[in-house]
Amino acid sequence: MHILVIGAAGMVGRKLTARLVSDQGLNGRPVEKMTLVDVIKPDHPDGFNGTVEALEVDVSEPGQAETLIASRPDVIFHLAAIVSGEAELDFEKGYRINLDGTRHLFDAIRLLNGEDGYKPRVVFTSSIAVVGAPLPFPIPDDFHLTPLTSYGTQKAICELLLADYSRRGFFDGIGIRLPTVCIRPGKPNKAASGFFSNILREPLIGQEAVLPVPEDVRHWHTSPRSAVGYLIHGATIDLERIGSRRSLSMPGVSATVGEQIEALRRVAGEKAVRLIRRKPDEMIMKMVAGWAPGFEAKRATELGFTAEQNFDEIIRVHIEDELGGQL
Amino acid sequence: MHILVIGAAGMVGRKLTARLVSDQGLNGRPVEKMTLVDVIKPDHPDGFNGTVEALEVDVSEPGQAETLIASRPDVIFHLAAIVSGEAELDFEKGYRINLDGTRHLFDAIRLLNGEDGYKPRVVFTSSIAVVGAPLPFPIPDDFHLTPLTSYGTQKAICELLLADYSRRGFFDGIGIRLPTVCIRPGKPNKAASGFFSNILREPLIGQEAVLPVPEDVRHWHTSPRSAVGYLIHGATIDLERIGSRRSLSMPGVSATVGEQIEALRRVAGEKAVRLIRRKPDEMIMKMVAGWAPGFEAKRATELGFTAEQNFDEIIRVHIEDELGGQL
Repeated sequence: MHILVIGAAGMVGRKLTARLVSDQGLNGRPVEKMTLVDVIKPDHPDGFNGTVEALEVDVSEPGQAETLIASRPDVIFHLAAIVSGEAELDFEKGYRINLDGTRHLFDAIRLLNGEDGYKPRVVFTSSIAVVGAPLPFPIPDDFHLTPLTSYGTQKAICELLLADYSRRGFFDGIGIRLPTVCIRPGKPNKAASGFFSNILREPLIGQEAVLPVPEDVRHWHTSPRSAVGYLIHGATIDLERIGSRRSLSMPGVSATVGEQIEALRRVAGEKAVRLIRRKPDEMIMKMVAGWAPGFEAKRATELGFTAEQNFDEIIRVHIEDELGGQL
Repeated sequence: MHILVIGAAGMVGRKLTARLVSDQGLNGRPVEKMTLVDVIKPDHPDGFNGTVEALEVDVSEPGQAETLIASRPDVIFHLAAIVSGEAELDFEKGYRINLDGTRHLFDAIRLLNGEDGYKPRVVFTSSIAVVGAPLPFPIPDDFHLTPLTSYGTQKAICELLLADYSRRGFFDGIGIRLPTVCIRPGKPNKAASGFFSNILREPLIGQEAVLPVPEDVRHWHTSPRSAVGYLIHGATIDLERIGSRRSLSMPGVSATVGEQIEALRRVAGEKAVRLIRRKPDEMIMKMVAGWAPGFEAKRATELGFTAEQNFDEIIRVHIEDELGGQL
């Protein structure tokens, strides 16, 4: 089996690659080859016995998708995107990478499908940004898509393309609407949503973190481990069961910031909680007000997608996967 | 005021142009210039005192939209599209005309907006094909978009673009989801939906028509006159009231084929009804089963969009507008 990961150098891409290596296969079949692609050259994964091709490629550039697809990978994970904040600041770049890049990929597959019936599984990462305020809680699976950012618009458009290209039989597509990934490993970054991770990750290693919003802010989370789990499951399930609505809101943990902090207290004690410094930020508060508080994710749950049950579990996953299993 | 109509040679485009001429203006302002554009050269309208530019242009070709927009029209009606059946048969043409053509237009406006703040009203014709079965009756305004055709996918994508470009302030956009236009004037055509018009239009002039579906088939209709009315109203209403959801399901008449026939009987008598010949067509029956039975259209109604109340009225509009007012 040959797997192509586009966006392999990102956090989720690296964890997905590592999981494919440790699983030694996908859907009961051994993985002989992985093609890992990103705008910066992805690292070779440790411990993989098969062939690895690591390429520095921008799929939004004309012709690049065709080249990648020419070797006919069996499964394509398309994770490449620029993030919400950047897509909002640079309108043209957002549409070029997040929309045109995806469309080029889909069209390259369609043309090969027309030649010889090539029909890979395509797992596309969408986002909860496809919905926009006012939002109910929980948000039902069939809630209308009214994105309020260019990023969310681009993801919603790609969901529509994925559904149409799948309906026409060009590939077997599934869209995975990722919750906010928490706890993101690494250093604090400037993403407006970064604080959801920062207020747990930094105190867990004895460092201060800034909380810019009130404790009653509710949001929708999943661990990096579960995010990778959705992608693997999406690559293996029987798509006959999914019907014409190809993009699914994933299960996750809906929690207020206060609930996140209580979980931190239970897992790491009062001394960790004391490292959270309140510093209200009006701009972040305003942005967060339009974000999704949580989804029903009924269809995805019925289809066997799973996530953590609460934030204690999300924190423990972080301790296991990032901190060697202990504080 | 300068008005640009893209898709001016089509049935709705011609009626819109005629209405603008007979109104002698738009929103209380005189129309000095009309630019009429289509892939075949539109006719000059009768009785217009201002300047008319009639152009044979395909806006999906690179650079054409920029040229059209360079004269900075105040209002742009974008009606150009290839129809559902053709978009399904010719995948690439459908995406090129219905998606890329619209995006080129929107981008041409965006670039001028960046130069000097040019910000026209853009009235985009969408379609009830943006929703797909299973459908409730009536379909609420916030029903999720799950198009089951490439045409519906292209319209839904353009609705998302319209909303994002409007949100960013590049133009003032409004999307009008047209019901099936009935009674379409002219000759019977090969569109799968053609029979809805044929079974009324042909008997009204003493000719036979074929009915390929059972009488309990329910669908969603509006007259050509009301369709033009939506576009005019969409060009003039205060868009502050519309919020972030820029595309509206229009009011219309929900009727079964049996109810259409009863209306024909009331207006034109039994002899007209006797000209309808039943000839079941499995393929058309299957297609029609997925079509919209009717919409709530609550938001559009609150915003002042209006339609006929029943099919008697739709037939009378046809007699007035197409048959000189009498049978």
